[in-house]
Amino acid sequence: MVLTFVGLGLWEESDISMKGIEAVMKADKIYAEFYTSKMSCDVVDLEKFFKKEINILSRSDLEEGSRKIVEEARERDVVILVPGDPMVATTHSAIVLEAIKMGVEVGIIHNASIVSAVCGLTGLHNYRFGKSATVSWHPSRVPVDVIFQNRSIDAHSLLFLDLHPPMSIEEAIGRLVEIDDEIADLYAVGIARAGSREATVRCDRAEKLRKFDFGDTPHTLIFLAKTLHFMEYECLKVLANAPEELEKAVR
Amino acid sequence: MVLTFVGLGLWEESDISMKGIEAVMKADKIYAEFYTSKMSCDVVDLEKFFKKEINILSRSDLEEGSRKIVEEARERDVVILVPGDPMVATTHSAIVLEAIKMGVEVGIIHNASIVSAVCGLTGLHNYRFGKSATVSWHPSRVPVDVIFQNRSIDAHSLLFLDLHPPMSIEEAIGRLVEIDDEIADLYAVGIARAGSREATVRCDRAEKLRKFDFGDTPHTLIFLAKTLHFMEYECLKVLANAPEELEKAVR
Repeated sequence: MVLTFVGLGLWEESDISMKGIEAVMKADKIYAEFYTSKMSCDVVDLEKFFKKEINILSRSDLEEGSRKIVEEARERDVVILVPGDPMVATTHSAIVLEAIKMGVEVGIIHNASIVSAVCGLTGLHNYRFGKSATVSWHPSRVPVDVIFQNRSIDAHSLLFLDLHPPMSIEEAIGRLVEIDDEIADLYAVGIARAGSREATVRCDRAEKLRKFDFGDTPHTLIFLAKTLHFMEYECLKVLANAPEELEKAVR
Repeated sequence: MVLTFVGLGLWEESDISMKGIEAVMKADKIYAEFYTSKMSCDVVDLEKFFKKEINILSRSDLEEGSRKIVEEARERDVVILVPGDPMVATTHSAIVLEAIKMGVEVGIIHNASIVSAVCGLTGLHNYRFGKSATVSWHPSRVPVDVIFQNRSIDAHSLLFLDLHPPMSIEEAIGRLVEIDDEIADLYAVGIARAGSREATVRCDRAEKLRKFDFGDTPHTLIFLAKTLHFMEYECLKVLANAPEELEKAVR
């Protein structure tokens, strides 16, 4: 019997892979978690799409209740549907470890993640991203420290915004500036609704982005490295309406 | 008319998403490039899968010949099939810019990328990865510099290995150690055939990994940050057979 994590990708039902659909169709029991990321489709859409019953997992089912799911996977094929690419959210590794220790085979069917999708949306080069961090409602210096650590090695910073409840770019920048007002002057890129046809991408100094209307969440934020590759600058101008003055950052 | 980049994901035909299949089915002309990454399926497999003719693009078609493809997309719907997630390879951004400047609509259908897949394969936390780099046959200090820059902010380093021809983990470590022999002592994780059922993942000091038989390429290499989260260590033990002594790195 196998416990298979199936990535749902970024946005809607049709983002699942053929391999993912095959795993769902063969499964005896299907779970889904929407805790670690926000998509436009919900469990009702997915049940309609697969014509199968799907059980929603809460955060505590995933964490403290993981043993129950693993026990179940000893007897029958279990699928856990996960937004994005499974395991990018650190929450899932506890279940994987538990399963392997109990002798249950684990499968992962990968899918798109915001981590790589931001490159297509912004034109920023993947190899130039440094560490990422989350701006959460719970105040923390970590995202500000990560931005400056990454700048020290000339790397971009990808920031995830809290989802419970969803935080906007405006709110995130407000929180970062409160911790360190140098943040206001830095160039950043705001991304709303990545993976949908209505994605919005905009580049400017943080204090200006803060006033831009990105529309509905989910939102994501990138702080730029000290320098840009000229192709990154060209892409940001065309894809994110970056100001001409950013050209000074091109090395 | 639309120029759509469709990500093929990591390994085989069935890694494509439903949305990707729909785009291929509607397209008037289909191209594929296998230059930027190596999959187990080739153009013959994909033609059989889609029952449509597919034209292979070389590196020069993608770079100097991009205008021709964009011109074509003014008249009819064109799809370019790309391994992994489109745009993670920087080669593609030139075509996107050209298309937008010529008024051709561009679509991106995201898919799994090695960039996020390594988290599932190793249990390493995504937010702790720093910049990445490529170890190429052309000698360069860049990957070594990136490893030490990332270590300075306690971040992991993801290294892509040259594909033309495919470089093994053994060869890559050999080249890195030649540039700086301190590399031999660092802990690293080798990954072979990510996204396939026969993926191999192994963690040890670089000098030891060098002697481990990872089997067929493609290979990928990660150099670990100075410290590990305890869950990262637990996962590396179970998923990558990491030595007990690595526990000292847990902070």
